[in-house]
Amino acid sequence: MNETLETILNHKSIRKFKDIPLTGEQLNTIIASAQQASTSSYMMAYSIIGVTDETKKAQLAEITGQSYVKDNGHLMIFCADLHRHTLHATEDQYEEMVENLENSEHFLVAAIDAALAAQNAAIAAESMGLGICYIGSIRNQLNKVDEILDLPKHVLPLFGMVFGTPDAEPDKKPRLPKEAVYFENTYQKDHKEKLAAFDETIAAYYAGRQTNNRSDSWTDQMLRRFTKPIRMDVTGIVKKKGFNKQ
Amino acid sequence: MNETLETILNHKSIRKFKDIPLTGEQLNTIIASAQQASTSSYMMAYSIIGVTDETKKAQLAEITGQSYVKDNGHLMIFCADLHRHTLHATEDQYEEMVENLENSEHFLVAAIDAALAAQNAAIAAESMGLGICYIGSIRNQLNKVDEILDLPKHVLPLFGMVFGTPDAEPDKKPRLPKEAVYFENTYQKDHKEKLAAFDETIAAYYAGRQTNNRSDSWTDQMLRRFTKPIRMDVTGIVKKKGFNKQ
Repeated sequence: MNETLETILNHKSIRKFKDIPLTGEQLNTIIASAQQASTSSYMMAYSIIGVTDETKKAQLAEITGQSYVKDNGHLMIFCADLHRHTLHATEDQYEEMVENLENSEHFLVAAIDAALAAQNAAIAAESMGLGICYIGSIRNQLNKVDEILDLPKHVLPLFGMVFGTPDAEPDKKPRLPKEAVYFENTYQKDHKEKLAAFDETIAAYYAGRQTNNRSDSWTDQMLRRFTKPIRMDVTGIVKKKGFNKQ
Repeated sequence: MNETLETILNHKSIRKFKDIPLTGEQLNTIIASAQQASTSSYMMAYSIIGVTDETKKAQLAEITGQSYVKDNGHLMIFCADLHRHTLHATEDQYEEMVENLENSEHFLVAAIDAALAAQNAAIAAESMGLGICYIGSIRNQLNKVDEILDLPKHVLPLFGMVFGTPDAEPDKKPRLPKEAVYFENTYQKDHKEKLAAFDETIAAYYAGRQTNNRSDSWTDQMLRRFTKPIRMDVTGIVKKKGFNKQ
């Protein structure tokens, strides 16, 4: 197995970091790695905001409810960005392009471009011995995050990522069995029994892990997640920011 | 520089492959790598359809207009998947969860989860000497792709990826300057002059590259892209499939 596969297959999200900021060289390597990811039709439809301002970090930590959003080696916010693509347009051209720019196709393009860049950043960081964690909980108060970062129309914060020198060694979290995720030629609509088998795996994991052990299963966790409305305001904010409108 | 960074930083999309199918071991490693990516709140809200059926591959190649969708070592279609999360729900629970499941928050979660898994697959494949190319053009006729793969509600094809032994050595495509993509603390709204500088870089690249050289700039390319409506039906199909509804 090569080093890259080892890095990828040993991924664990890190939520506790030593008080060591990333070096400029580490940061540059991570950003260059993010930028080299594939991008839909060369659109490069994302931006990254590195947050170093302590006040902003504290505000974001409060929104997310996660102290490691403040205490880390570096914090980045990944944004969908279609603003850049309007900068060279005349007023007439802008009028001509806006409906197309604001459709679901380009919302998808921007979200996917940002995610591909982010995952390259994650792997690059991990290959250098750093730990990372994605921060989806910036979407708890997306309006506020948008304000804190002072983003123009057509730039939408999607998720954050924290980086740093790991100060914890969590267990590796199991994944669904391959047979529940990968299908050949035709999707298997009822794969309930594969999920039931996974429930046993994950129950054992939750019962046995070093910290925060509990009695739970994956299907229960998902039922709880989806029967409790979450972030119902994201739809409106996304549209207000000029994405996903038609 | 470590091997992983070399792999990431040397990425080029490959559009011509030798007639060598991926081995089962390569495929398993790629899938395991995809699965180990981070996932929002453990939702693992994606599925991968490996397409080996020659008729289906030919149909997909026609939809995308790209012969390498047929001629490759392997083809995968990455799908947003929230169907799996409904399998264990009673009818009452389903009624309770559906509005939440179908909001923009969970559309984003599923698209991003799929993209993170895909980028892990891409890096894993490249680390083993394989080439890859993302296939966004399945969205040319998303309805048809959905039919070909016979996907249930709450499963939406997003993009494809082809894998194989490279039979071409394209030039590495330049990326926007770091200063146009990465900002500290505050987004720089007018970064027009950085894009103008990049236009010079990309003009030189297009003029000088080995094949398919032309006279073009990035800003012109983007103006052309956005002033010509593209995939305006994606919005409706996404909603029809039970995503992004409110």
